Amino acid sequence: MRNDGRGRDELRPVHFELNYVKHPEGSVLISVGETKVICNASVEDRVPPFMRGSGKGWITAEYSMLPRATEQRNIRESTKGKVTGRTMEIQRLISRSLRAVMDLEKLGERTIWIDCDVIQADGGTRTASITGAFVAMVLAVAKLHQDNKISAFPITNFLAATSVGIDPEYAEILDLNYIEDSRTNVDMNIIMTDLGKFVELQGTGEESTFSREQLNTLLELGEKGINELIHLQKKALGEYIELIERREE
Amino acid sequence: MRNDGRGRDELRPVHFELNYVKHPEGSVLISVGETKVICNASVEDRVPPFMRGSGKGWITAEYSMLPRATEQRNIRESTKGKVTGRTMEIQRLISRSLRAVMDLEKLGERTIWIDCDVIQADGGTRTASITGAFVAMVLAVAKLHQDNKISAFPITNFLAATSVGIDPEYAEILDLNYIEDSRTNVDMNIIMTDLGKFVELQGTGEESTFSREQLNTLLELGEKGINELIHLQKKALGEYIELIERREE
Amino acid sequence: MRNDGRGRDELRPVHFELNYVKHPEGSVLISVGETKVICNASVEDRVPPFMRGSGKGWITAEYSMLPRATEQRNIRESTKGKVTGRTMEIQRLISRSLRAVMDLEKLGERTIWIDCDVIQADGGTRTASITGAFVAMVLAVAKLHQDNKISAFPITNFLAATSVGIDPEYAEILDLNYIEDSRTNVDMNIIMTDLGKFVELQGTGEESTFSREQLNTLLELGEKGINELIHLQKKALGEYIELIERREE
Amino acid sequence: MRNDGRGRDELRPVHFELNYVKHPEGSVLISVGETKVICNASVEDRVPPFMRGSGKGWITAEYSMLPRATEQRNIRESTKGKVTGRTMEIQRLISRSLRAVMDLEKLGERTIWIDCDVIQADGGTRTASITGAFVAMVLAVAKLHQDNKISAFPITNFLAATSVGIDPEYAEILDLNYIEDSRTNVDMNIIMTDLGKFVELQGTGEESTFSREQLNTLLELGEKGINELIHLQKKALGEYIELIERREE
Amino acid sequence: MRNDGRGRDELRPVHFELNYVKHPEGSVLISVGETKVICNASVEDRVPPFMRGSGKGWITAEYSMLPRATEQRNIRESTKGKVTGRTMEIQRLISRSLRAVMDLEKLGERTIWIDCDVIQADGGTRTASITGAFVAMVLAVAKLHQDNKISAFPITNFLAATSVGIDPEYAEILDLNYIEDSRTNVDMNIIMTDLGKFVELQGTGEESTFSREQLNTLLELGEKGINELIHLQKKALGEYIELIERREE
Amino acid sequence: MRNDGRGRDELRPVHFELNYVKHPEGSVLISVGETKVICNASVEDRVPPFMRGSGKGWITAEYSMLPRATEQRNIRESTKGKVTGRTMEIQRLISRSLRAVMDLEKLGERTIWIDCDVIQADGGTRTASITGAFVAMVLAVAKLHQDNKISAFPITNFLAATSVGIDPEYAEILDLNYIEDSRTNVDMNIIMTDLGKFVELQGTGEESTFSREQLNTLLELGEKGINELIHLQKKALGEYIELIERREE
Repeated sequence: MRNDGRGRDELRPVHFELNYVKHPEGSVLISVGETKVICNASVEDRVPPFMRGSGKGWITAEYSMLPRATEQRNIRESTKGKVTGRTMEIQRLISRSLRAVMDLEKLGERTIWIDCDVIQADGGTRTASITGAFVAMVLAVAKLHQDNKISAFPITNFLAATSVGIDPEYAEILDLNYIEDSRTNVDMNIIMTDLGKFVELQGTGEESTFSREQLNTLLELGEKGINELIHLQKKALGEYIELIERREE
Repeated sequence: MRNDGRGRDELRPVHFELNYVKHPEGSVLISVGETKVICNASVEDRVPPFMRGSGKGWITAEYSMLPRATEQRNIRESTKGKVTGRTMEIQRLISRSLRAVMDLEKLGERTIWIDCDVIQADGGTRTASITGAFVAMVLAVAKLHQDNKISAFPITNFLAATSVGIDPEYAEILDLNYIEDSRTNVDMNIIMTDLGKFVELQGTGEESTFSREQLNTLLELGEKGINELIHLQKKALGEYIELIERREE
Repeated sequence: MRNDGRGRDELRPVHFELNYVKHPEGSVLISVGETKVICNASVEDRVPPFMRGSGKGWITAEYSMLPRATEQRNIRESTKGKVTGRTMEIQRLISRSLRAVMDLEKLGERTIWIDCDVIQADGGTRTASITGAFVAMVLAVAKLHQDNKISAFPITNFLAATSVGIDPEYAEILDLNYIEDSRTNVDMNIIMTDLGKFVELQGTGEESTFSREQLNTLLELGEKGINELIHLQKKALGEYIELIERREE
Repeated sequence: MRNDGRGRDELRPVHFELNYVKHPEGSVLISVGETKVICNASVEDRVPPFMRGSGKGWITAEYSMLPRATEQRNIRESTKGKVTGRTMEIQRLISRSLRAVMDLEKLGERTIWIDCDVIQADGGTRTASITGAFVAMVLAVAKLHQDNKISAFPITNFLAATSVGIDPEYAEILDLNYIEDSRTNVDMNIIMTDLGKFVELQGTGEESTFSREQLNTLLELGEKGINELIHLQKKALGEYIELIERREE
Repeated sequence: MRNDGRGRDELRPVHFELNYVKHPEGSVLISVGETKVICNASVEDRVPPFMRGSGKGWITAEYSMLPRATEQRNIRESTKGKVTGRTMEIQRLISRSLRAVMDLEKLGERTIWIDCDVIQADGGTRTASITGAFVAMVLAVAKLHQDNKISAFPITNFLAATSVGIDPEYAEILDLNYIEDSRTNVDMNIIMTDLGKFVELQGTGEESTFSREQLNTLLELGEKGINELIHLQKKALGEYIELIERREE
Repeated sequence: MRNDGRGRDELRPVHFELNYVKHPEGSVLISVGETKVICNASVEDRVPPFMRGSGKGWITAEYSMLPRATEQRNIRESTKGKVTGRTMEIQRLISRSLRAVMDLEKLGERTIWIDCDVIQADGGTRTASITGAFVAMVLAVAKLHQDNKISAFPITNFLAATSVGIDPEYAEILDLNYIEDSRTNVDMNIIMTDLGKFVELQGTGEESTFSREQLNTLLELGEKGINELIHLQKKALGEYIELIERREE
């Protein structure tokens, strides 16, 4: 049994609190175990310069941590005067992933701004951000739909993300918490749709390597976790699911 | 009656949720009406270079807003690469105010880091930050006291902050919400202790002025509000109050 | 008697040298004791983006110190690559104060740039900047008036600023020099018009507090100082006074 | 046949020019088709602060493109005043990959600085950088070994990198050039050792997804390419190979 | 004889490799002894804002060194987040010099971007950059001419640059390498046309001075070197020379 | 006759106001015609890291313009967040020039900070800065000498700077004012000692060139101007001259 009593293929408890903050078009507080992220989706009626006139929309994500989301206080990036490489990498990952399930033409010349602010961190903040941001984005787009600003619902699939890794004691495990993340040498982020297709796969052997067989085990664990996460997203979204399901007609 | 039904001298509903985030030594979510701020207090066992060897402690505050704490999304300061003048002014105000009720010698060579992160804004974010940060600071210092890292409790007084202003329709009013803040030309932040002494007084006539009589009315409203806020702080802090009350012996 | 021989309610000697630098529309060298500030006012025939199309003008202030205006050499902000919080706070204070006596509609879509450059500092640089900048602004606006670019003179009142504080030895005193400023725990900046109305009031107990009675004494000292400063501004401005006095018709 | 006449599983011509620049301890110009990268490895006899006293070494990589390495001129990052997210992501990838085949304890408290400067770009610059940087790093470490500064040779495996992707016309293909990279929606970077173990796997469906079967085909193409690249590295390194092979004793 | 066997008035071996990189309109690798610089000239069909509507073109230069172009590794300017004073001075020098032999009206509203990237440094990188950039600029402008985008060839003269200095042992010498540059107290950069006219003359006595007689000797050495460099430029440019020679008709 | 009535070889009126600001060890307001620069010299009892332990001193210069020193208001470099290339070039020139007449060993491990702040600009601000900064430096070093902190006076020569140029109408002229500076294509800064030796010579043909004969005429004009400037420096410095003259013993 793992340090928090879970089996190798078990997710931590996951909760979505919808409409957590009042101003954004979509707002969700996601908890994955002790990791808590406020995911806000905002709609802006224009796109970045390189997209203007294309008739297509865009999704941009920003990610940040409160200084005391972690055990040790971190220096704010605004105080440093620059965004770190790690933050930029996560921001690019979140926005790229969400774009994979958005029909940008149906969205029209609009930007969806995704803000993921980690208020408490215990491992897996980037995958929790993606899983929560997807729900916030559905809320924001549903609002556009209700207001008749878009005719066809542009989100094509459910999308969730989780991490897997190779623990020195328990071998392949699902959904790493902070302690586990610190002791595994191989960890992988898997982002998948409800049709079981990969959107992103990032496996890293930090000062280590992994074999094809290990990769296969990791992918199976990941797929199991994603299915459970999407099940929970659907439960949280309730009536909104129907909007997305319509894509299959 | 004001736009939210309050009388001229009424505060909005105020709540303190203690230990909101798990890592910081002191953590409080303060709500003042629809304004919500996470106030975290962290203890670091050293002081900035200019204080080293003085035997005295220090308090530093940082303030930030989530991009979508407001009606319109704001650009993150980390993205801009610099902290705005408004933010710096608020940070300096928070730390200066808290230092007025801290015996820095009794604190010893330690820094208390105060992080105020506004997750939802509806006017009065800087005064809510101070009122909440005081409570978070008590929790953090109480932990130092329980761990026997300090012998005498160094916080000398309760401290709270509120805003007052001159409304074109209702004249002098207490605790301005965002709509009121936008229409008043004169607004004033008052920061006071439980002994009725001023720590800070900042009155501004934006494109306007105010007379000595108006000032007196504003100060009376402010004093009433501060007394109520300190009453609520005491209720929230429960057993911890005793630590501060000891100063009077 | 204070360290420079003044009584508690005495200003230091104040001089205005008009047209100190030749290029600006308005230029004044103000001396308040040993504090010397070059105050330049420039007119630009457009406003910042957020004011365009409003038909109203704007006032923006910048404040800086020569590195060796002070006893110890300071690092230039251009070398640091950023403007400090203190500087931003002062800049916001200067521009806000001047806007309180400017009818921005009568000014029309123009920006008045105020540059306050401290060449020698001995306490009270921000209040000297405001008092001097007001005079420079009158000169610049008078030039607009002479050139028939504006029909009605838009400055509505005289404006001056001074500091007051509570000295450990002499109690409440007026117009603090550097040594006094360093030893007082409470200091307050008062900005007022010739009608005795407050434009700004900023009282700070750095690691200290002050009572309502002390506040009242400070306000009386401040009002006395402001009246004397405005008298000196009028003497320096000579014929230009008439332009402002017309507001009362 | 692909746009440059290659079959689906063919690499572009690859060359290594050793000792390309005279000052660095290891220097290689790698060409992969029209993509050309100068890879320099420098040895510094100290480690970053967070590693001091650990007895272990470190590898840091920097990546840059000449402004006119590409069809359209790019703005230099030094002119922009900051490093882009893409550059940071590549730098982190290069250094993490090289660390996976370096025994940092055997290296001792030294930093290997890897500089990859792209002088001509035609797709695959990050994988060419890793493949070339490995060779430069071998040269630099061999120099340490010849100078008897390290007793055991610390590089444990050969390492190379390539890209694979899914082309709308040719399906899964190996080693994408710029035109191919622009038209594929799925692309993947694979970094592997000579033992067929993964060091890093980054697959991305930009506005697209990929199935488990497609993943398997991509991994096979990638493995074939890596084997060929390592064969060419060995040919280029000649006598130095023996140093690395010794790891198997 | 000097440390590399040259006489006092001898240049190091100079080579030009044309079309070194494929994308730029003009590309040259210049070697002056062990100093190697990639000089790329790019054509952009617009000018900076301050030149718009003038009917004239512009030349902008950027200069950079690979971190390991030198004996000790240098920190990249993109990592520092700013361009050093030395780099800016060199960039301004290169662009100013090239503009002296360009008829900006004949060039039309276009910008020639000059990028000089030093891949190996052994003294004289700024003069080698100018000598090489001139050749790259001829290639880029010849391409404009061949494409009939300009009717008259706008380059009016050949241009080359070299350094001279006063060595403690050998007195006045031509074309300083790095070791010589480090030991001379007086060094001078001379930039001249094929008509023997000065474009720029920068003589500096770093912690030293020089007399009028020494200046004259330095100028004669410089003129001899420039003549030889222009001879080599002509040889490298072959058929393109004729375009420039036409100016004399 | 030139636009201000001078002959070709005439300087503008030059004045030195010593001890202009009270805090710096040396302070001078220099006027060269309408150009006015505050030159302050500060002494710091340590040197930059690269000089520590060398037993030698250092001179660092900073140069800045008030935003309204010029006809059009300039943006402050602190607001831009960076120092321009022009400013850096001037700062490097000032400090390099002053070091040429300073015996850094006799100065000991101290830094002389030179601050040149232009309060009114009418051409020749960099040469006025050098001429004025030399006088401020003498005052600061004389103070060190009077305080017996240095045994031998370390300044070895008088030093002054002026500009010369080729005017389209008047040919070679001395000491260009702003209007002249704008219309000449060739201008040259000459920095010389009282022994007639060059410290720096910077001649630039902006979009133009100059012959050897023109150079000779410019050098003669410059030498005449420098001699007059040094004569005025001596008059201003009075008793201090003797300290410098002692070098000839």
